[in-house]
Amino acid sequence: MSKLKVNLNSDLGESFGAWTMGDDAAMLAVVTTANVACGFHAGDWTVMQQTVDEAVKNGVSIGAHPSYPDLQGFGRRPMTMSNSEVEALMAYQIGALIGIAATRGGKVTHVKPHGAINNKAAVDADLAAAIARGIAGVSRDLIFLAPAGSAMIDAGRKANLPVAQEVFADRNYDDDGNLVPRGKPDAMVHDNDQALQNVLRMVQEKAIVSLSGKRIPCAVDSICVHGDSAGAVAMARHIRAGLEKAGVEIVTLPAMLG
Amino acid sequence: MSKLKVNLNSDLGESFGAWTMGDDAAMLAVVTTANVACGFHAGDWTVMQQTVDEAVKNGVSIGAHPSYPDLQGFGRRPMTMSNSEVEALMAYQIGALIGIAATRGGKVTHVKPHGAINNKAAVDADLAAAIARGIAGVSRDLIFLAPAGSAMIDAGRKANLPVAQEVFADRNYDDDGNLVPRGKPDAMVHDNDQALQNVLRMVQEKAIVSLSGKRIPCAVDSICVHGDSAGAVAMARHIRAGLEKAGVEIVTLPAMLG
Amino acid sequence: MSKLKVNLNSDLGESFGAWTMGDDAAMLAVVTTANVACGFHAGDWTVMQQTVDEAVKNGVSIGAHPSYPDLQGFGRRPMTMSNSEVEALMAYQIGALIGIAATRGGKVTHVKPHGAINNKAAVDADLAAAIARGIAGVSRDLIFLAPAGSAMIDAGRKANLPVAQEVFADRNYDDDGNLVPRGKPDAMVHDNDQALQNVLRMVQEKAIVSLSGKRIPCAVDSICVHGDSAGAVAMARHIRAGLEKAGVEIVTLPAMLG
Amino acid sequence: MSKLKVNLNSDLGESFGAWTMGDDAAMLAVVTTANVACGFHAGDWTVMQQTVDEAVKNGVSIGAHPSYPDLQGFGRRPMTMSNSEVEALMAYQIGALIGIAATRGGKVTHVKPHGAINNKAAVDADLAAAIARGIAGVSRDLIFLAPAGSAMIDAGRKANLPVAQEVFADRNYDDDGNLVPRGKPDAMVHDNDQALQNVLRMVQEKAIVSLSGKRIPCAVDSICVHGDSAGAVAMARHIRAGLEKAGVEIVTLPAMLG
Repeated sequence: MSKLKVNLNSDLGESFGAWTMGDDAAMLAVVTTANVACGFHAGDWTVMQQTVDEAVKNGVSIGAHPSYPDLQGFGRRPMTMSNSEVEALMAYQIGALIGIAATRGGKVTHVKPHGAINNKAAVDADLAAAIARGIAGVSRDLIFLAPAGSAMIDAGRKANLPVAQEVFADRNYDDDGNLVPRGKPDAMVHDNDQALQNVLRMVQEKAIVSLSGKRIPCAVDSICVHGDSAGAVAMARHIRAGLEKAGVEIVTLPAMLG
Repeated sequence: MSKLKVNLNSDLGESFGAWTMGDDAAMLAVVTTANVACGFHAGDWTVMQQTVDEAVKNGVSIGAHPSYPDLQGFGRRPMTMSNSEVEALMAYQIGALIGIAATRGGKVTHVKPHGAINNKAAVDADLAAAIARGIAGVSRDLIFLAPAGSAMIDAGRKANLPVAQEVFADRNYDDDGNLVPRGKPDAMVHDNDQALQNVLRMVQEKAIVSLSGKRIPCAVDSICVHGDSAGAVAMARHIRAGLEKAGVEIVTLPAMLG
Repeated sequence: MSKLKVNLNSDLGESFGAWTMGDDAAMLAVVTTANVACGFHAGDWTVMQQTVDEAVKNGVSIGAHPSYPDLQGFGRRPMTMSNSEVEALMAYQIGALIGIAATRGGKVTHVKPHGAINNKAAVDADLAAAIARGIAGVSRDLIFLAPAGSAMIDAGRKANLPVAQEVFADRNYDDDGNLVPRGKPDAMVHDNDQALQNVLRMVQEKAIVSLSGKRIPCAVDSICVHGDSAGAVAMARHIRAGLEKAGVEIVTLPAMLG
Repeated sequence: MSKLKVNLNSDLGESFGAWTMGDDAAMLAVVTTANVACGFHAGDWTVMQQTVDEAVKNGVSIGAHPSYPDLQGFGRRPMTMSNSEVEALMAYQIGALIGIAATRGGKVTHVKPHGAINNKAAVDADLAAAIARGIAGVSRDLIFLAPAGSAMIDAGRKANLPVAQEVFADRNYDDDGNLVPRGKPDAMVHDNDQALQNVLRMVQEKAIVSLSGKRIPCAVDSICVHGDSAGAVAMARHIRAGLEKAGVEIVTLPAMLG
């Protein structure tokens, strides 16, 4: 039997101008894939340049993390846009990162939408299809990274894009395979060991495992870890170490799908 | 003797959101190359999408028209940036347009900086080199379109980029080959026939011809015409018709250099 | 019996940077009240300065026209914000216009929300109350100008603000007193005479008059006319002339309520 | 002899959206005056609302800290603007803060320009006069807080504004009374005791005291302390404690001039 493997991804490059967010240097030593903000919810040309530099140095695969245009709201406010506008919105941001990456010897290999547009598209097939068309229009080689079982995974397949399904290390799932909504008591996993056990089981069982223990079979290509607090970095390190100890290989996103 | 040829370029896609600027439809029927605003002084993802669509439909070659980040000032205010930041600024905007163009069957074949950064780089070798590095970092196939004889032409050559030299149909030149500064009485050419005679002579003599009649030999690859007024469109039409009548072929920018 | 009077208001100062929108000069000669964009959907500090200058010169009363922060979307995209943030959003924009007006001898006498936030607040008592608190927090003398019968009128009264109820010259109403939704065939009034007859009857009968002829009694303090096309300016002129001919006095908003 | 007194001011409210900058809570317990960012280099309506709330709670006097429009560059890039546009730029930002402050029981009592426009206006009488006109146009009661001996102090007096002269706790001065430029070895004062001795002497001797010991007599109304690092907060605390121990009363800016 071949060795189990999984990808670790994190949202990075979310500083802007004079403002710093997260500890990218620490996270880039833990994860194997960086979702890089493209200037619409965070990031600017200089932050993107530096983030690509650090990702290349760390051998971390690079993806675009496009958002609604909403810097002040960090891309967390839902917006109404036509499908055609969504395609352009995606292509603009993906292209911008491709341009920056090219100048620094980096390569953009995936796209993972950010915040409100990601949340909407997870359950909105029409929006998910528009996003997929925007990605595929730029390049059919780009991997569409999206929540396991979401409408975006279907949309990516229909658009003939390679898709990668992610689960969240710090979140619990309900028996339908959906995240327990923020605000509910069990939404978050705060304990590092618990988080590790959850993701290890999901990787080994090739399934989302709900809070009640129910298995919802699906590919588990990538685990999303957050880096916006010291605790989050510690959890990410704990998960990586634990997965490796259990014999799971941690690989880049292209290596995961390749 | 082979037929004379020249390119006609214009700055297009300078609408933004609810605001319209220029008569792009009219200009796209006259010129063979469009410099497309990339969202920093004008244009947005939707305007860029529409502009690329129209350019493709008209067989017009497409270039990025990157700017300092200054929407309210239309990119006309000089800014101080490090060379490294300038490279990122260029790559971001060029990449964004490449992304949009890819989704609409278009191809970005050149780059022409806009406004204040263009004016500064015309005489600042250091800034010109940073811009050239930004362009070449994205792709060495991109044509660097810049004012004839400017520091950007030198910088483009040093960066091994294809370069194209442009002259302005509605401006007079002094005996050093520089534009007569705006504000001076003879800065602008208002008469359509005069403009036609000027550019025809420059194309035929392969030289900038100054107001006093002095010839400064240089390649005249492209003529920049403006489209922000009804008068400007009329001048552009007059120039195209006159050039064609004189046996000059009007070609896209890649065809000009190819 | 005292003479009938009414106010005419229009959304002005919606240019931005290098982009022009509407014919403000023409409209300022027709209306008696200007709703001035405050930089969030349109307008900038310079446009606001010029718009105030022109309003002062024409003896037109000045109001703030605050919006969601969405320049590219012209404030037409609904956004989700906390009530506390809405209060700050209103106060910022109203204050900005008060600051500009003070430097030009003008005085801000009312507030009329723009676009998506206006549409939402017309039917959302909670949002309407937050807007009213934002206005009242700046000054209890500011008139809250809002669609006749909307939730904002109630909210304004509860916040002890002077309120002014507006009807739209170019729109038809249904039997509930609501605008016939855009997209429906009868949404718009295109004929200048029809528009004049509608508003004249509403002013004289102190009621919204629906398409079917039903009267919904309410104060008709102000008539909103649009100025974003040549046709719109012509309609505005026709309405003013017709109202005056019928003996209705056209007054500023403070004069209307005073 | 009456007791010596001085004001302590700091630049606050420089967070933006999801990004935090500085430890405003710590600084508001040390200083007696807050220069509040107005959204153009930092700050947004919500940050301004929270900053005013905290300032009011701490009995700290509030001023506007207006900037060139340059969020990504934090207002540190010089820009070229007409004097008329500068007046509008000032009035917009001052008014916006007045609006927010009014809703929270606060009062804006001074204006201190930020970053590049402050640096330029310190030595450019024309720009300084435009800023003064912008301030005075909003209200002649606003105190113009500017570097001791700068062109802005002259401009403020000519505009009949109350002026307050500030010195910098963490900077050395040359024998002309100018700051030793950043980049030179002696530009910064790093030692807390040295900083305290410098400002104490300047307050007691009513003069700028240069690095070489030269006295340039001037009013020393306010000391600017920075709060963007833990070290900066410690220095500010050290200075306040040392001044109070030496019998200097620390007062708000209006109290200083009153």
